[in-house]
Amino acid sequence: MKKIEVIQNVLEANEAIANRNQKLLNDNKVFCINIMSAPGAGKTSLILQTMKLLKDKLNVGIIEGDVASTVDAEKVQSQAKAVVQINTRNMPESCSLMAAMIESALKGMPLDSIDVILIENVGNLICPSEFTLGEHKRVVISSVPEGEDKPIKYPLIFVDADAVIVNKIDLLPYVDFDRTAFRRSVEGLNPKVEVFQVSCKTGEGIEKWCSWILEQLEANVTRQ
Amino acid sequence: MKKIEVIQNVLEANEAIANRNQKLLNDNKVFCINIMSAPGAGKTSLILQTMKLLKDKLNVGIIEGDVASTVDAEKVQSQAKAVVQINTRNMPESCSLMAAMIESALKGMPLDSIDVILIENVGNLICPSEFTLGEHKRVVISSVPEGEDKPIKYPLIFVDADAVIVNKIDLLPYVDFDRTAFRRSVEGLNPKVEVFQVSCKTGEGIEKWCSWILEQLEANVTRQ
Repeated sequence: MKKIEVIQNVLEANEAIANRNQKLLNDNKVFCINIMSAPGAGKTSLILQTMKLLKDKLNVGIIEGDVASTVDAEKVQSQAKAVVQINTRNMPESCSLMAAMIESALKGMPLDSIDVILIENVGNLICPSEFTLGEHKRVVISSVPEGEDKPIKYPLIFVDADAVIVNKIDLLPYVDFDRTAFRRSVEGLNPKVEVFQVSCKTGEGIEKWCSWILEQLEANVTRQ
Repeated sequence: MKKIEVIQNVLEANEAIANRNQKLLNDNKVFCINIMSAPGAGKTSLILQTMKLLKDKLNVGIIEGDVASTVDAEKVQSQAKAVVQINTRNMPESCSLMAAMIESALKGMPLDSIDVILIENVGNLICPSEFTLGEHKRVVISSVPEGEDKPIKYPLIFVDADAVIVNKIDLLPYVDFDRTAFRRSVEGLNPKVEVFQVSCKTGEGIEKWCSWILEQLEANVTRQ
């Protein structure tokens, strides 16, 4: 019983900080998306493709979460208004970004000149589902070579997602991936979710995904 | 400071149970391998391919770890001497198997008629590196579509591995994956590690991997 109490407190503390983060973002009219996936599903590639289409329309800030290294931050640096790398290796939770880490990152970003922040969470389909960061939208990437059974095996992250992106559709001819079964599993967990099919290698489907971001951003700014 | 103390206690408690598990395995001359990877890298497929080659030589038991579902246990059931599925969804740690879960699983297995137990850990490159289970060998699968930078971004799981398996080499013509860079990163973290290159789809490389298991098993039984 005691252990469960400790975990509960961590989650409550996290949520309080996440609420503060969202208020800070709203005050600065910054729209924020939390991008989650298994390792190697294509979070960084999606960010790079998204920047290519949106960088002339919007000022984009990036927060990169990784256990170790600055590999991803280096890849996106030239395209973004501001980039912060968070390494979770020596933090109490290394398997996910937490709201307190985002709070620190936001302090180092010029929020008054940023329209959108894309957060690349740590590569993991489990822990990030537990920690809200203050984001406006939660997006899960599932890549074709991982197989269509991921929503069945890691349901929680799909239940709370606003959008699910099926990436690496260029590999469909070479691997077994049942798109209908995948969509059925996702919609069974989360009937209102948006599902996008993209290839970050060829660029297919990226335009539709970027249109969704622009729509969500507009709806969010209007709502405030 | 208090939180760090709690975590430390969890790890210590885990290690004590892991030591008991290994004694129980040794007393029954059971060799045990802990297989870890990101979601969708091919843990279940590797187990199926391994069973195909070893089932006439050895009695194999399987412990399947997943957040939810019995999908994997169903896939391997017909080939194994005994299968136990562990669902971590409502456990204190849902992102990894822990020694106490293995202790429960071992109680339900006919250890005196099993030669090898393959443990399929929860799909995750972070949490499983923290929890020893009582296994004799730790194996990490990294699949080609994930990209060659995984050892740089998730170093801890590679540091303690006895073997690293590069899976899905059949996809090498279709994705960017620098095998030399991958091997250099892994050996930089862990100079003594064995690296195998396999395709669980075509069966390429599986024989060499199975020979390694047989060698390790023999060395382990002789040592006891």
